[in-house]
Amino acid sequence: MACNMNEECFHPDLPEISRKRARKLMSSEFVVTTGIELESLSPESAVVSMPLKGRRNSIETGHGGAIFTLADEAFALSSNLGNDVWVALSCNISYHRPALGDRITATSRQINSTRNHALYEVLIHDNDRHVATFQGLAVRLDPDRKR
Amino acid sequence: MACNMNEECFHPDLPEISRKRARKLMSSEFVVTTGIELESLSPESAVVSMPLKGRRNSIETGHGGAIFTLADEAFALSSNLGNDVWVALSCNISYHRPALGDRITATSRQINSTRNHALYEVLIHDNDRHVATFQGLAVRLDPDRKR
Amino acid sequence: MACNMNEECFHPDLPEISRKRARKLMSSEFVVTTGIELESLSPESAVVSMPLKGRRNSIETGHGGAIFTLADEAFALSSNLGNDVWVALSCNISYHRPALGDRITATSRQINSTRNHALYEVLIHDNDRHVATFQGLAVRLDPDRKR
Amino acid sequence: MACNMNEECFHPDLPEISRKRARKLMSSEFVVTTGIELESLSPESAVVSMPLKGRRNSIETGHGGAIFTLADEAFALSSNLGNDVWVALSCNISYHRPALGDRITATSRQINSTRNHALYEVLIHDNDRHVATFQGLAVRLDPDRKR
Repeated sequence: MACNMNEECFHPDLPEISRKRARKLMSSEFVVTTGIELESLSPESAVVSMPLKGRRNSIETGHGGAIFTLADEAFALSSNLGNDVWVALSCNISYHRPALGDRITATSRQINSTRNHALYEVLIHDNDRHVATFQGLAVRLDPDRKR
Repeated sequence: MACNMNEECFHPDLPEISRKRARKLMSSEFVVTTGIELESLSPESAVVSMPLKGRRNSIETGHGGAIFTLADEAFALSSNLGNDVWVALSCNISYHRPALGDRITATSRQINSTRNHALYEVLIHDNDRHVATFQGLAVRLDPDRKR
Repeated sequence: MACNMNEECFHPDLPEISRKRARKLMSSEFVVTTGIELESLSPESAVVSMPLKGRRNSIETGHGGAIFTLADEAFALSSNLGNDVWVALSCNISYHRPALGDRITATSRQINSTRNHALYEVLIHDNDRHVATFQGLAVRLDPDRKR
Repeated sequence: MACNMNEECFHPDLPEISRKRARKLMSSEFVVTTGIELESLSPESAVVSMPLKGRRNSIETGHGGAIFTLADEAFALSSNLGNDVWVALSCNISYHRPALGDRITATSRQINSTRNHALYEVLIHDNDRHVATFQGLAVRLDPDRKR
């Protein structure tokens, strides 16, 4: 059950800057279009979910782009918990089996971080079935340049 | 200008089976939701486009998931020109610069194919700016098993 | 300290077929050339190591190809514990920081497996420093076709 | 036929800094160990080759790590033609078919570059057979920090 961006979405240890940035990320146009909802956010992990109805491909399973988008959002949330803006530099996704249920969930964790780059893994599940694995490499935007 | 799935979308050499499968791919739920349109389809390349309005992220550039979804559709079209069903096994995308214009375009080409696997490259452009590069590895579904 | 392919390399639960296949993998030409040694092998994980002397690049850190090769060997060992022959279909590696020590170690784990494909993660360390993360996607060779 | 680092390796348009850096890259420990030779270097492409004898895996085809290392060297050469030091941040490789011949060749080209990141594609051939496709993402080291 999604938490509708209430305070119950957020882990008690999460500072206000993280909550503020998460609210902004979750209110972006494409996140609203795709119906992604926040389940929980902590310093260690972001969990987001999405219904599959309306997001299927031509063989009636979850569209690869929808699955990627959900994972990408968990990645974005986890990499933007502080003041700096981090953006995706490179991502990969492996699809293990078709997403068939009503709703899929993506759960992120950080694998590594250095000053300017950070790597995250996101696992995507359809109930108990592990349907895909995503990896995202983020780069920190130089606040003086903003790319 | 998208061709609205008219016959002018299709290269004259493209057999009817390819046109039929493209129509099915382009009418799937998530393709309609995201507003992807076919520009052209030939034995060598698929070109699809998408408006950026409604598909932006929280820093007002094209959302990485929307860009991926567009590229994934060019990949799906190019890998499903015959009778067999090919699905994505693994994909990667590198983001080079923010997508800022009104509309982005994705253009596919095959890099390699064997009996059961095929690799495609898709370049994504925002007008003349090369914004991202996608690679997709497809696997042929065994018609007797359909996964 | 490498176990020199003695029985102490192998987890007690590891069947003889796994040990036999590991011995063959570890005796291949390029494994000998690069000086990769087995540290331990269990149903859950393969650990291999390599000295960095003789495997450096032009800026005197561990060569990316040597680091990849070590990770690839942990992946090959973990994906070939049974009777079937699995080969690498696609791999990716992210380099986090330069490898500077005397010896690096790679540790594999399986992320997912289906009938014909399996995904593994391999972490590469230089002592306590996490220097790189590898992902390998393996495909099962059809015993009747051997590609 | 490799050019043994003679002047005939280098395209006439290649400045002395590029030649000097290529000589250093080609003389690194692991490049010598693996027997990689330069075939040609131009502003557009690096071509390197390697014998397969001594670089095979346990099923007697070219070892995935050796194939990666060859591709990685073409990538390193192409990304280090100027004064700045560029290092690999993330690489992926897809293996299409086994390398069976006497010698394999890797040919690089740049896909995209920005101020701090650049993406390259490297195709690996065994005679006329396209055996693998590599993509490398390089990051420019800040000369004041050197990571």
